[in-house]
Amino acid sequence: MTEQEKLFIKMALDAWNIQIDRTSKLINSLNDEQLQREVAPGRNSGVYLVGHLTAVHDALFPLLGLGDRMYPHLEEIFEKNPDKSGLAKPEARELRSCWVAVNEKLAQHFNGFSIKDWLRKHTAISDEDFQKEPHRNRLNVLLNRTSHLANHLGQMIFLK
Amino acid sequence: MTEQEKLFIKMALDAWNIQIDRTSKLINSLNDEQLQREVAPGRNSGVYLVGHLTAVHDALFPLLGLGDRMYPHLEEIFEKNPDKSGLAKPEARELRSCWVAVNEKLAQHFNGFSIKDWLRKHTAISDEDFQKEPHRNRLNVLLNRTSHLANHLGQMIFLK
Repeated sequence: MTEQEKLFIKMALDAWNIQIDRTSKLINSLNDEQLQREVAPGRNSGVYLVGHLTAVHDALFPLLGLGDRMYPHLEEIFEKNPDKSGLAKPEARELRSCWVAVNEKLAQHFNGFSIKDWLRKHTAISDEDFQKEPHRNRLNVLLNRTSHLANHLGQMIFLK
Repeated sequence: MTEQEKLFIKMALDAWNIQIDRTSKLINSLNDEQLQREVAPGRNSGVYLVGHLTAVHDALFPLLGLGDRMYPHLEEIFEKNPDKSGLAKPEARELRSCWVAVNEKLAQHFNGFSIKDWLRKHTAISDEDFQKEPHRNRLNVLLNRTSHLANHLGQMIFLK
């Protein structure tokens, strides 16, 4: 990797890690009762958002070609359905630990990626389309998920 | 610029533009009365957040060495002070137009930047520190402001 390439990766990963760290600190600072509350009247609960973010990050393993989801049971409850679906949700304690485990395992992968690894296509695009749109790579997924996380972190702050 | 360098810049700018476009669409979809409301009970009003985001983006001109702020009067009201400061705020109509003008002028600069321009230091870091921390450049500022915008966009959605 050239120095310049290293710089790009560092900046993108720093931006991701800043949002991950801020979210983790926020979750740790809230008790289970606070996490059960809606972030604003009629909006998602803290528990739902922790589950949603965990499921979306867990989906990065198959999307980036890194293996299967760690917690596939979260997909139906927190990705395919809204908060008030009536589906039973795991306890806050379980969701807290899934959030940490998914992001730690992602970090292990991310820290070992070369520039070539980052610019490889994700699994939701065909070889043919990737030829025409080489920006649809893993690093791009990271940037988009950073914004997604930041959107929801801005909402979860209201639980404080 | 190599193809790879172009790719990095495109991805970072796309991530920024996605959040800018979503915010602009949201602001345009809200009437002035809706913008006056708080995003959640006791939290910032929509008007304050539009002013805050406009002022923070306006500060990018001096921070990135691109000249002076376009609307320096917004700094005191929307950056240095909170929503309930008692300071008189510009009308929503004026803030809407400042938001558009600042981001359009930034886009003109950004679209003309070479990779060298993006990796130049911002003005809040010394030459000496920049030698040791070359990631503190203009592109890094863009990534961080993208997250900042995404944090607040997640909140402003509650005005709908």
